[in-house]
Amino acid sequence: MAISNKIKGFMGQSSWIRKMFEEGDKLKKQYGADQVYDFSLGNPNIDPPDCFQEHLTRIVGMDTPGRHAYMPNAGYPETRAAVAAFLGQGHDVALSADHILMTCGAGGALNVILKTLLDPGEEVLTPAPFFVEYRFYADNAGGVLKTVKTNEDFSLDLAAMAEAINDKTKVVLINSPNNPTGKVYDEATIRKLAALMEEKGKALGKIIYLVSDEPYGEIVYDGVQVPSILKAYANSVIATSYSKSLSLPGERIGFIAVNPRILEIDDVINGMVLCNRILGFVNAPALMQRVIAGIQGMRVDVSEYQRKRDLLCDGLAAGGYDFQKPEGAFYLFPKSPIPDDVAFVKALQKRRILTVPGSGFGGPGHFRIAYCVDDRTIINAMDGFVETMKEFRK
Amino acid sequence: MAISNKIKGFMGQSSWIRKMFEEGDKLKKQYGADQVYDFSLGNPNIDPPDCFQEHLTRIVGMDTPGRHAYMPNAGYPETRAAVAAFLGQGHDVALSADHILMTCGAGGALNVILKTLLDPGEEVLTPAPFFVEYRFYADNAGGVLKTVKTNEDFSLDLAAMAEAINDKTKVVLINSPNNPTGKVYDEATIRKLAALMEEKGKALGKIIYLVSDEPYGEIVYDGVQVPSILKAYANSVIATSYSKSLSLPGERIGFIAVNPRILEIDDVINGMVLCNRILGFVNAPALMQRVIAGIQGMRVDVSEYQRKRDLLCDGLAAGGYDFQKPEGAFYLFPKSPIPDDVAFVKALQKRRILTVPGSGFGGPGHFRIAYCVDDRTIINAMDGFVETMKEFRK
Repeated sequence: MAISNKIKGFMGQSSWIRKMFEEGDKLKKQYGADQVYDFSLGNPNIDPPDCFQEHLTRIVGMDTPGRHAYMPNAGYPETRAAVAAFLGQGHDVALSADHILMTCGAGGALNVILKTLLDPGEEVLTPAPFFVEYRFYADNAGGVLKTVKTNEDFSLDLAAMAEAINDKTKVVLINSPNNPTGKVYDEATIRKLAALMEEKGKALGKIIYLVSDEPYGEIVYDGVQVPSILKAYANSVIATSYSKSLSLPGERIGFIAVNPRILEIDDVINGMVLCNRILGFVNAPALMQRVIAGIQGMRVDVSEYQRKRDLLCDGLAAGGYDFQKPEGAFYLFPKSPIPDDVAFVKALQKRRILTVPGSGFGGPGHFRIAYCVDDRTIINAMDGFVETMKEFRK
Repeated sequence: MAISNKIKGFMGQSSWIRKMFEEGDKLKKQYGADQVYDFSLGNPNIDPPDCFQEHLTRIVGMDTPGRHAYMPNAGYPETRAAVAAFLGQGHDVALSADHILMTCGAGGALNVILKTLLDPGEEVLTPAPFFVEYRFYADNAGGVLKTVKTNEDFSLDLAAMAEAINDKTKVVLINSPNNPTGKVYDEATIRKLAALMEEKGKALGKIIYLVSDEPYGEIVYDGVQVPSILKAYANSVIATSYSKSLSLPGERIGFIAVNPRILEIDDVINGMVLCNRILGFVNAPALMQRVIAGIQGMRVDVSEYQRKRDLLCDGLAAGGYDFQKPEGAFYLFPKSPIPDDVAFVKALQKRRILTVPGSGFGGPGHFRIAYCVDDRTIINAMDGFVETMKEFRK
């Protein structure tokens, strides 16, 4: 065989998803893109806020020497200080530039974190349904991802988590607001999770790290707040990006925030800086680092996503769909009316509606609707959603 | 222990280099940055060409919808087509967008390539002296880097290469123009290397890939040309970036070019696209992809580096230094007058001259001078270089 057996295997496993995307592409060519209702991708359709464009234009116009050169692998000190100041305020935790490492998005951040922390075979626990790339990220670092079931409403099942933690557990990885469910773990739950991890860590004589993947942290509805893991648990790290809060996923700009109370903090931070370099990221893109430093706290108009969520939820509820109303992110994860979620997604596809089977997220019997789309896509797809449900309820 | 044992070990191994950088920083604080002659970093000091700034300004001013959104993991089709057209012309090889994968610099490219190709324990052979990060890149993908000695003038030692190739060899990784030596492998040598690899591949019944890391491909002097590996060897891949040709290292924009004649081409390309995603790069930064599409073939004024090279070489030759005149890149790799290159580098440091010991590049008994610095740094450091040499020649 030519290429790596593992990569060949990964390609084989994901071939059914690729096939579905290819089917979708075929439909678009056959009927025209506007006649296909594509809810398959988490690609924000809202433009970045005006302040971003203004600040980008200003920064590009500045004649700063060496403005596209290498900087320290952790990022520009000014950018890290700006991120620390804003984030620290939000978390009510004293953060400095030293606690921030700029990364190529949250995907880069998570790879750097896991590479820094994991020894071969160590386990990363994550509540399912989950963002399926986590499995690859853990594997990249020589670790193993283990999923932990959640409750019916996708809240954390702490008893299941307690059972899953063992002497191989190095990281508990949470994602809140969650992709694909839109669930936000509340403060009481995070506090209980922290207590559980502390207790288990003591019993096992080791550190268990809490890694919180929060790229949707700013996309929350109805006044819901994402609780601070930095306050809740000392050995915690945040991975996040501006991909969703500023609609910049293609620019690959994010960061890691390390809890100032984390044990052996120098090793953790220096290890992450080393990993950022040796994994080939080297540093987060320079220009975007300079831009985001000046627009901390800015974000897209979240009420637009909320309107889309409500439009979708109201329509689907009337059509007989069963789902948990998302508290954040821009995904809905309804139950499939039949156990075979792939079959149901294929039935939707026949009505030119593209979604993703829940099996791809460790949530079989469900499917994911990414509603970061034009309102009219939701409106025009609604008949198809309703008719498809009727077929299966006959 | 808290963090990964491997990463902790890596930090320990590189701590002496860090210490030297810290010493340099101390000197800068003590004497002022302009009184310290810093030749330690390959950070281009020449600004990007004017066309870059003009094109960047134009692109930023365009109101393209979704201009910061995700695109296919391989990159924008238009960018890939533009890169393929220009590169294909240079190599006299028919390339299309399908053969190009945009990456987060050459560091990202190499990690994607090695992850795609290597099975656990497979070997990557590279001529030494070499860019020291290769060791990490191979390890990241579960492989092992093995170095192969070069001739006295840093040209390839094909007999040593022949001896090193065995049934675990999956990749031969070359870097021409070379960091740290400035050597460019000529066409006859590349042809012989290709013949050797074909013969060995046949004898071993396997594909051995030639990976050419060419970020300095445009930085060549005296009419020297970097021969095309795409023409020379079917199972070949180029990793490169605009970091040096356009002075953009902080922006992390580069690409992989896959030989259209490579065996099992679909697996190779699809594997790389998957790896670009799962390693956390996801895609090369969007804005820079759009910018470089419009300025293919542009580059910094290489005559500036040539002037610096000559200034440095003339001064050091007069001072009794022994070295190979670089044919490309912006590094000089002179012999240390004593076997202990670390001791010699420390002696230079006493005269506020910062360089890197050759041991750090698998080239003990040498040291690296990165001459991508102001002319006056070279001029002002020359007395110190000459005096230090005198000390050791007493």
